[in-house]
Amino acid sequence: MISRSGPHPLILASRSPRRRHLLEQAGLTFSVIPSTFDEDTVPVGLPENHVLMLAKAKAMDVALLYPESWIIGADTIVLIGDTILGKPRTETEARRMLKALSGKTHRVLTGFCICCMAARRSFSQTVETKVLFKALCESEIDWYISTAESFDKAGAYAVQGLGSILVRSIHGSYTNVVGLPLCEVVGFLLTEGVVQR
Amino acid sequence: MISRSGPHPLILASRSPRRRHLLEQAGLTFSVIPSTFDEDTVPVGLPENHVLMLAKAKAMDVALLYPESWIIGADTIVLIGDTILGKPRTETEARRMLKALSGKTHRVLTGFCICCMAARRSFSQTVETKVLFKALCESEIDWYISTAESFDKAGAYAVQGLGSILVRSIHGSYTNVVGLPLCEVVGFLLTEGVVQR
Repeated sequence: MISRSGPHPLILASRSPRRRHLLEQAGLTFSVIPSTFDEDTVPVGLPENHVLMLAKAKAMDVALLYPESWIIGADTIVLIGDTILGKPRTETEARRMLKALSGKTHRVLTGFCICCMAARRSFSQTVETKVLFKALCESEIDWYISTAESFDKAGAYAVQGLGSILVRSIHGSYTNVVGLPLCEVVGFLLTEGVVQR
Repeated sequence: MISRSGPHPLILASRSPRRRHLLEQAGLTFSVIPSTFDEDTVPVGLPENHVLMLAKAKAMDVALLYPESWIIGADTIVLIGDTILGKPRTETEARRMLKALSGKTHRVLTGFCICCMAARRSFSQTVETKVLFKALCESEIDWYISTAESFDKAGAYAVQGLGSILVRSIHGSYTNVVGLPLCEVVGFLLTEGVVQR
């Protein structure tokens, strides 16, 4: 529905199926070439800066290989108070995260970077959304963990999956919680003429 | 992932593919039997009451035919100020609605009713979500109308489709904007023992 304009292909530098699905939902045509950037090499500073640095690093990693293309890199974290909740590696970690989120409002930060080396252009932004969880009892947490949806998701839940019944309300961009703030990303691509309607 | 418990089947009394998809996303097992209730017979009063009356009427319409089942009825409207935006029937109507929404915050009200005649139980609720649209230029409106996504959608947009790039932020339940507030609906079904984890 949205067509690419100009000579430069569009590349999503992320292995996240949620981000791929969002860009498809927006009607974009693109390739997926995940970055191989090692996130652990970036020291954790202020969360707002951290997601932005990671998004830029992922985008640049792929941009160096495809200098003629427009690259989208992104990173999403979940914050409860000042604590960053990453992707749980065990059921115990997932359970601890879901308990921390239960009945409270947390923040989801997604940093994204869109750049093209040939065009010498780069844009990056961090978008924040607040998410209120319903109060979860032990059996609800047990059930959600048994669905295995927690794994490979920052904060141990998927707002677009079964996790949707755990979320009472959000304040901000919904697609940002899924993994990429579509209004902002597509807005930049249109303004820059990377895609056109 | 969520199993039905007890002897009473669950029926969605709506022809909306969005509502069906939401209940599937929540992992529920159910049948779809749209109500044949004529919405135009209900006088339009206060919007909050109106969606609730329609939701109840749709649920009861099907409940009379399937008294042993639990029935979910729902109705969604979009309100800009005090004006109700229904489903546009022409491109001109869709264009007028999108212009009215451009750059402003509107309200989405979904009333739902869950009832079972054999169990002599009925629950209904209206949930409100505020939605902020980005400012749309003429060519964006032209483009969106050309995608034909406006039709059969209250307010002339689909938040879960290409319309996602028109929405800057929301305040409240996201699934309520799609057509059914999942946290509230599934919460009632679990509390009532209609479904179990």
